Amino acid sequence: MAISRIPQTSLLFVLLLLTAAMVLGGFGPAQPDPEHAASAGHQDPVAPVLLALTVLLVCAKVGGELFERLGQPAVLGELIFGVILGNLVLVNLQWDFFGPLRTDHITEQWAYAIDILARIGVILLLFEVGLESSVAEMRKVGASSFLVATVGVIAPFALGYFASATFIKEVPPVILAMNANFDLSNIHIFIGATLCATSVGITARVLKDLGKLQTKEAKIVLGAAVIDDVMGLIILAVAAGIIVAAETGVPMEFAEVVKITGVALGFLVGAIVIGLTVVPRILKKIAVLRTHGIMLISALLFCFLFAYLANAAGLAAIVGAFAAGLILEEVHFTEFREEKHLHDLLTPVTTFLVPIFFVVMGIQVRLETFLNPSVLGLALALSVAAFIGKQVCGLAVVDKGLDRLSVGLGMVPRGEVGLIFASIGKGLGVVDDAIFSAIVIMVIVTTLMTPPLLKFSLARWERRRPAEA
Amino acid sequence: MAISRIPQTSLLFVLLLLTAAMVLGGFGPAQPDPEHAASAGHQDPVAPVLLALTVLLVCAKVGGELFERLGQPAVLGELIFGVILGNLVLVNLQWDFFGPLRTDHITEQWAYAIDILARIGVILLLFEVGLESSVAEMRKVGASSFLVATVGVIAPFALGYFASATFIKEVPPVILAMNANFDLSNIHIFIGATLCATSVGITARVLKDLGKLQTKEAKIVLGAAVIDDVMGLIILAVAAGIIVAAETGVPMEFAEVVKITGVALGFLVGAIVIGLTVVPRILKKIAVLRTHGIMLISALLFCFLFAYLANAAGLAAIVGAFAAGLILEEVHFTEFREEKHLHDLLTPVTTFLVPIFFVVMGIQVRLETFLNPSVLGLALALSVAAFIGKQVCGLAVVDKGLDRLSVGLGMVPRGEVGLIFASIGKGLGVVDDAIFSAIVIMVIVTTLMTPPLLKFSLARWERRRPAEA
Repeated sequence: MAISRIPQTSLLFVLLLLTAAMVLGGFGPAQPDPEHAASAGHQDPVAPVLLALTVLLVCAKVGGELFERLGQPAVLGELIFGVILGNLVLVNLQWDFFGPLRTDHITEQWAYAIDILARIGVILLLFEVGLESSVAEMRKVGASSFLVATVGVIAPFALGYFASATFIKEVPPVILAMNANFDLSNIHIFIGATLCATSVGITARVLKDLGKLQTKEAKIVLGAAVIDDVMGLIILAVAAGIIVAAETGVPMEFAEVVKITGVALGFLVGAIVIGLTVVPRILKKIAVLRTHGIMLISALLFCFLFAYLANAAGLAAIVGAFAAGLILEEVHFTEFREEKHLHDLLTPVTTFLVPIFFVVMGIQVRLETFLNPSVLGLALALSVAAFIGKQVCGLAVVDKGLDRLSVGLGMVPRGEVGLIFASIGKGLGVVDDAIFSAIVIMVIVTTLMTPPLLKFSLARWERRRPAEA
Repeated sequence: MAISRIPQTSLLFVLLLLTAAMVLGGFGPAQPDPEHAASAGHQDPVAPVLLALTVLLVCAKVGGELFERLGQPAVLGELIFGVILGNLVLVNLQWDFFGPLRTDHITEQWAYAIDILARIGVILLLFEVGLESSVAEMRKVGASSFLVATVGVIAPFALGYFASATFIKEVPPVILAMNANFDLSNIHIFIGATLCATSVGITARVLKDLGKLQTKEAKIVLGAAVIDDVMGLIILAVAAGIIVAAETGVPMEFAEVVKITGVALGFLVGAIVIGLTVVPRILKKIAVLRTHGIMLISALLFCFLFAYLANAAGLAAIVGAFAAGLILEEVHFTEFREEKHLHDLLTPVTTFLVPIFFVVMGIQVRLETFLNPSVLGLALALSVAAFIGKQVCGLAVVDKGLDRLSVGLGMVPRGEVGLIFASIGKGLGVVDDAIFSAIVIMVIVTTLMTPPLLKFSLARWERRRPAEA
């Protein structure tokens, strides 16, 4: 009885908050005269950011709650509620609160601040994922993980390229306007790359929710997802290099591809070597410092510095954040005076910032692009390519007597990594609104289908195994 | 032996980080061609923010560590290292990394993002301070606290006004250029207001470090500091109102002062009433939600929403954050499913964001203004006024047999609240670079002198009391 009343009352509160925010929104972010606001000085520049944060976080939590109750990952709810929030303008043209966040070149300062908070959020998420996996763990994962990951990169890339080539016959005018020499195949390459990555976060969460985290299948999938991430990030670096090279008009030579792969691999190998040799010693020195919060801050510093250096080296900032997480181990922090675990300190920061990324991603989806049948076609083709591409993975499992179907299904969700790729593609000018929307649909579909299918497949295996044994 | 080696090695690491950051800074925030960077897309817009965060956080922690080792509060180290960081340009004109942060109207986007992060940091700090005190606690603090607080607001205000009137004989040209009708007395009022607030954070920290948090003197000081904060915030609201009124050319009427005080008091009283009646019920509803991190997020939502509403009501955003903290009690969160205390969840977020505010405050101090002898004179006069103004407080203690000297000394540090007032004054256009620098010196002096003086005074009382008893 109590349960049935809850959603109603909490929803009421949320509606109250949102209504207050919308009403006040009139003199909030949609400030028509920023000049005046600045000179009057009475409107604190942080005020529109606070309002936007309030709306974004309410939206994230309502969406997350609703989807968790439906047995789906919270991240999906954040994404879909973001889509709703961003597209309310379609229903009520007066309320384009988040309009400034939906342009390719953000000019409103508050929208820029939210964008940066979202980006810091995703960097911290990849750092957290990196922290969850260790170099030692990656070495332990056997041949199966590596093969599964390799197949799980090649097959979706090929299928994604093929799907893109089938549906996208000409360079979108927006991209052509920015760069007349743009080659169509760049889009296919980029879409192929977007289909490679597996979302280790979502897979791990689903397996954990089902109590299957300690099975051999789970370990193969998680190992493969990590290797997938690394491969995906390298492919992303190469794809970005090819596109930037194309933009400058000089076609990318093979030597260049080798160079980018080399830089990416070199960065990761370098980070791992530093991680195994220098980092423990540095942390031992820092551990004796007395100042408050030094454990969290030194972890954040590693994350930010590596993310910055990765970007300076021509890689995505998230590659650096992931590498920083990979080389930092909980064990390095045992000598700190603080009683908490690093994980417990980092979680509140990511709890605050990560949902912002997903809601903003949702906001940037333009539902009107779906009216274009070719977008829907592309989205469908990408979803099929993403699904089949990862199913092939199951065949790559070399160990015998394992649940290949579940391994393949575990690799399906694209989640945050796919979204990150899409947003980077937008930044590179290789992904227009239509393609972005299609990728987001693919991410939603693959993420949405995994939990129920995996649940079913694991239960089926459970029933079959005793008969076989 | 081990101890003596530590600062050396950790300093080495820090220097290494800073050098890397500075070298890379060439293609970091100081990006000469943002247009090109945006279109090339290779430079992630978050990259300069990451670099700036790295430098700011290293600076904060090195400064904090050094000052804690010297027996001073860490916040002072953050501030002073910020001053050094911001003024390195005086030594090496090539390195004006943080220049974009030092202008009144920030145009560089990365600097704006850092500014917003700092502002969110100070809002969360005031929220945390509010959380530490409760409505019930404020009612319990007797007549002494209220009298000490009242005297501690009136005396410094009067002395500050007098010091300002002595040293500032004409409206600075920068302010006059913005507003030809600017009245000189606005500056005196604002400086007077700046001297009112006691930094409850620093006082509490010092008393805690000395193991005196449970003495009656400590309770009076902490109670008075909270009441001081509220009074200071109301004075700030009135002063800001007077200044905005002056800017519009219409002199402020007494009715207006009453109105602003009414709005400020009404907001606080309204917040308290809501806090005692509605909030526990709302939190009870939210507590049953399943989604991850709902406890922290609902606390943050209260903070952000109240800060926004305070600003919309014409008050400073920090007033709202403080009110939100005041009405939220740890006990409201006991029904949440999470095992952690709210305090443990909030601390990591403030650990990350609060130091940014103090370092940025330090960065905005222009050391070259100190070459102006009148700035130094003003700084000295303000420091004396701040010190004497709060010493008078001790006389207001009605209870007998208490250490009045220690009560007065406990009220001296201005810390973060003084800095917050100064930054608001800058935003209002009533504080120019010279006055800002003088206020920051006053804050540094009062904060720096408190720990050793209080230590000495409490020890003296300890020796005398047994003789009297």
